Amino acid sequence: MPLAPDQQDEIAAQRAARAETRRATVPALEDMLYRPLPVLDHGFIRVIDYMGDDGAIVQAARVSYGRGTRKVSEDAGLIRYLMRHHHTTPFEMCEIKYHVKLPIFIARQWIRHRTANVNEYSARYSILDREFYIPAPENLAAQSATNRQGRGAMLEGEEAARVLDILRADAARCHDHYLDLLNEDTSGAPRDPSRQGLARELARMNLTLNTYTQWYWKTDLHNLFHFLALRADAHAQYEIRAYAEVMLRTVETWVPLAYGAFRDYRLGAVTLSAPMRAALRRMLAGERVEQADSGLSKREWAEFLAAINGG
Amino acid sequence: MPLAPDQQDEIAAQRAARAETRRATVPALEDMLYRPLPVLDHGFIRVIDYMGDDGAIVQAARVSYGRGTRKVSEDAGLIRYLMRHHHTTPFEMCEIKYHVKLPIFIARQWIRHRTANVNEYSARYSILDREFYIPAPENLAAQSATNRQGRGAMLEGEEAARVLDILRADAARCHDHYLDLLNEDTSGAPRDPSRQGLARELARMNLTLNTYTQWYWKTDLHNLFHFLALRADAHAQYEIRAYAEVMLRTVETWVPLAYGAFRDYRLGAVTLSAPMRAALRRMLAGERVEQADSGLSKREWAEFLAAINGG
Amino acid sequence: MPLAPDQQDEIAAQRAARAETRRATVPALEDMLYRPLPVLDHGFIRVIDYMGDDGAIVQAARVSYGRGTRKVSEDAGLIRYLMRHHHTTPFEMCEIKYHVKLPIFIARQWIRHRTANVNEYSARYSILDREFYIPAPENLAAQSATNRQGRGAMLEGEEAARVLDILRADAARCHDHYLDLLNEDTSGAPRDPSRQGLARELARMNLTLNTYTQWYWKTDLHNLFHFLALRADAHAQYEIRAYAEVMLRTVETWVPLAYGAFRDYRLGAVTLSAPMRAALRRMLAGERVEQADSGLSKREWAEFLAAINGG
Amino acid sequence: MPLAPDQQDEIAAQRAARAETRRATVPALEDMLYRPLPVLDHGFIRVIDYMGDDGAIVQAARVSYGRGTRKVSEDAGLIRYLMRHHHTTPFEMCEIKYHVKLPIFIARQWIRHRTANVNEYSARYSILDREFYIPAPENLAAQSATNRQGRGAMLEGEEAARVLDILRADAARCHDHYLDLLNEDTSGAPRDPSRQGLARELARMNLTLNTYTQWYWKTDLHNLFHFLALRADAHAQYEIRAYAEVMLRTVETWVPLAYGAFRDYRLGAVTLSAPMRAALRRMLAGERVEQADSGLSKREWAEFLAAINGG
Repeated sequence: MPLAPDQQDEIAAQRAARAETRRATVPALEDMLYRPLPVLDHGFIRVIDYMGDDGAIVQAARVSYGRGTRKVSEDAGLIRYLMRHHHTTPFEMCEIKYHVKLPIFIARQWIRHRTANVNEYSARYSILDREFYIPAPENLAAQSATNRQGRGAMLEGEEAARVLDILRADAARCHDHYLDLLNEDTSGAPRDPSRQGLARELARMNLTLNTYTQWYWKTDLHNLFHFLALRADAHAQYEIRAYAEVMLRTVETWVPLAYGAFRDYRLGAVTLSAPMRAALRRMLAGERVEQADSGLSKREWAEFLAAINGG
Repeated sequence: MPLAPDQQDEIAAQRAARAETRRATVPALEDMLYRPLPVLDHGFIRVIDYMGDDGAIVQAARVSYGRGTRKVSEDAGLIRYLMRHHHTTPFEMCEIKYHVKLPIFIARQWIRHRTANVNEYSARYSILDREFYIPAPENLAAQSATNRQGRGAMLEGEEAARVLDILRADAARCHDHYLDLLNEDTSGAPRDPSRQGLARELARMNLTLNTYTQWYWKTDLHNLFHFLALRADAHAQYEIRAYAEVMLRTVETWVPLAYGAFRDYRLGAVTLSAPMRAALRRMLAGERVEQADSGLSKREWAEFLAAINGG
Repeated sequence: MPLAPDQQDEIAAQRAARAETRRATVPALEDMLYRPLPVLDHGFIRVIDYMGDDGAIVQAARVSYGRGTRKVSEDAGLIRYLMRHHHTTPFEMCEIKYHVKLPIFIARQWIRHRTANVNEYSARYSILDREFYIPAPENLAAQSATNRQGRGAMLEGEEAARVLDILRADAARCHDHYLDLLNEDTSGAPRDPSRQGLARELARMNLTLNTYTQWYWKTDLHNLFHFLALRADAHAQYEIRAYAEVMLRTVETWVPLAYGAFRDYRLGAVTLSAPMRAALRRMLAGERVEQADSGLSKREWAEFLAAINGG
Repeated sequence: MPLAPDQQDEIAAQRAARAETRRATVPALEDMLYRPLPVLDHGFIRVIDYMGDDGAIVQAARVSYGRGTRKVSEDAGLIRYLMRHHHTTPFEMCEIKYHVKLPIFIARQWIRHRTANVNEYSARYSILDREFYIPAPENLAAQSATNRQGRGAMLEGEEAARVLDILRADAARCHDHYLDLLNEDTSGAPRDPSRQGLARELARMNLTLNTYTQWYWKTDLHNLFHFLALRADAHAQYEIRAYAEVMLRTVETWVPLAYGAFRDYRLGAVTLSAPMRAALRRMLAGERVEQADSGLSKREWAEFLAAINGG
């Protein structure tokens, strides 16, 4: 994720500027502000702005006039209570804004989360850089034999090399042709004066889905937790999970009490269905329960065992 | 809007606290932060927090790495362009949080705006204060004879006095009975030890709709503009307009460039329908157009004249 | 819930009309269509329209060209899989529209669910009927001593009688005065020609919060399930739960397979937090675990026991 | 847009099935139901389901018990009034569901409209067909010289031929390699038994952005109008406008009264900003106004002239 010198300068300038504020402020997150946190081969997450802190959750839950004479332990207790009982609106009172650079095929998964504000870099208006996601060898996986939307074993040797060759060559060729179709050099002047150049809004269609795009993405803490619960999950595609894991670190830095509650009551929690509860009650009563007489399908039985034994 | 001493102290304490931040900061809005701005007889608007400024709109529109070497005139031009062409997403990148005290019947209108985060003071959990909205004499209006959802002339003399008497007496009696049903004194102890007291979630149903409630309300600038365009409009009920007008001041203080664009392209703008445009073209060609041959209904004709002459 | 004769006639006329359609149709729900299902003393739920059925969930999940040669057992399996793994978007492909009559203080809870479409009867424009919610004696509960937002024991004898007297008298007096303020008789003519009458948008503030209002409310099946999971829950206020329970019946009639999955994986399911899972693992390993050494607070311990024993 | 025989059979089977319903039904839209309406070279729009009709808008606005003894002229008047005064909630009471086949780069624009329900064909789970969007020669446009996000003149001759060659060859090669990476034949068996095949969720990244995808997309009439106002506009990219125009026909078929109001008050309407209104007032007063003394920028002046003369 090497940034261009002018990008580095812009970030440094913004980090250098300070102002006094009466707003809730989180020094640890201030320290992280604007810095690119690397993800995948060319992507990043940057925290651009935030509103609120753990105290703001408490203040909103109480609809109070000020921050009061809070003890950290009382705030933690209230926040854990709110999380446990799905009182979600106080968490909506904190807001965070990220700048994200990510491959287009991941952007297409991400955008499915509708309760967020998005400004994407426009390829109707601007020209996309020559940057593509090429998986690291350890992330080059075969199709799973058991899960139609999952990954199986790592690809190795010649097959892995061939995959990487194809991905690299196709992305590069498509981007070369994209610039050729545009007929513009970096200054915007025509490369070949005898050609008009294809409109940007059309030329972009020649790019491959691993081309990087970027956007500003802003959401509230409740919806961020929902995003992270789905995207930091083991069932999520590795590439989006890589972003979710970096974002988890930013949330832990920002609102440590809410993050702790989220970890205990969401990330580390499991849901037991009504049939699973029936099986569990029998087990706790000392009965030996097998899948065949549990009322659970094989798949649910495996999920059940993972829920009560794993974690 | 007299606040209790402990409320004033909490506000003063929060206003006194300062921190250093790298975030976009608006000194003029900092000055306004946490202070109650009076609305109606007992209501208020308080700005509790904000994210972003005019520069953040520009930065999001450009998906840029920093604030750049912006000239105010360029930013203003871009912001006006975005507003004029309904490029709404950059305005969503600014967020504001208010604490609002308002009568319940106005809260019921307000909550219809769904794209916002809300934490309302809970009358299931707490006891509502003895405060009701009683209109000032100049806002005591008769039903409009022409508009089924509008107001007509001011009520005067004996009728006005009678209205105020009824409103005051019914609200007061209902609140007295509410406390009686609860059977709690302010310390939570039973007033009458021989009674259990009705559950709070039930007792509240005895209150009148002009009882004051309060909430934290948070939204982004685009949705706030949408709210204000509808609620600062002459067709909005006076009581909600009174809140909208105070909020307009907070927005002007916060994002003066965006506010200017909003004033020119939304608040002060009119929409001409296809039939109105046809009538206007005839007028500009020198023709004398009357309602009867305009293709517009009487009501639309009046709206048309207001659009081209008024403002 | 006695309807006026003209209301009954309108419903009968709409029930009598039939048309042929190519759309997914559910005969059992057709039978229920438009009929008022009573809730509380004067409220009702009416199913006004619906889109989709269990098959439409399957079709959307597969993005298929037609309904295929489906077996019910395959559809059920897929729907249960989608529900279990939080694949929520196929459930959003079914939509239902209700007409609901409900007390205002319940409408204020209900409207907190933002992902729905609402048209409420307008008291700015029309006059509200003289109908109030008065709890049945068995629902007249004291404040809970242990849960600040719950109910305790039933009120009895003199205290109960007194509560009902107050609720009835205040609601009636406030509505009488409301009509008086309006100065309109049912034909819209002035009661007292010497008075102008207060504007409807103002007069309504004199009503109590148990006055009935009504609205059309439309949502998709996923968001309806979310609403029902919260509002049919034992922690929800009895009055809104009464509506949720009637709605559950309409959903069971409409999409029996999805309803079955919802019952097993949501309504009847429990979530075990990370600390609860740790305690459970110790118990399943044969250890005797007490609250004191469980890492759970007393309240969480009680919730834990209910989760693993109850249901 | 040639459908496979099994797809045609599924559609024919679904069109052949009929049922009786009490719901609002629109015979003209029933006739259109499920049929693919071609868009671009391989795309289509299919209406899959709908809820409500013009009468349902009226019924919701009135929160009525039945359809009443409506006259078409009264309904039209009310619907036009609602549209003109931005009373948008009654339009939300109608819902429509489409099946859309469209190029991925257009899907990325489309998905920006968040108030809709979407189920997209999953390339994590399934294999995308070998179909790409290649513009018709008359839609092959140069970059606009004046508008950074618009199109200019048509490309011709050798340059046009070259563009088409590149688009075709790159899309085809990338899709061939995609199948190669997957190492699956159409039955799911490995093409080359010595290879494992890359996971589908990874292989898809090798596709170009003009590859076709498909989704079920469902929204309410108010949000559909918002979508169409933006996407049927002359400033929208041609390719998404092609879809919007076909959808306009489906809306006209479905709710002709609402469509007429939308055409007059949205599609054919213009907004005059406060400075434009000032210029217009001077013109109507007989003054000769030039851009230089109008207070409008050159661009705004051009927009102003188009607004008052065009249409």
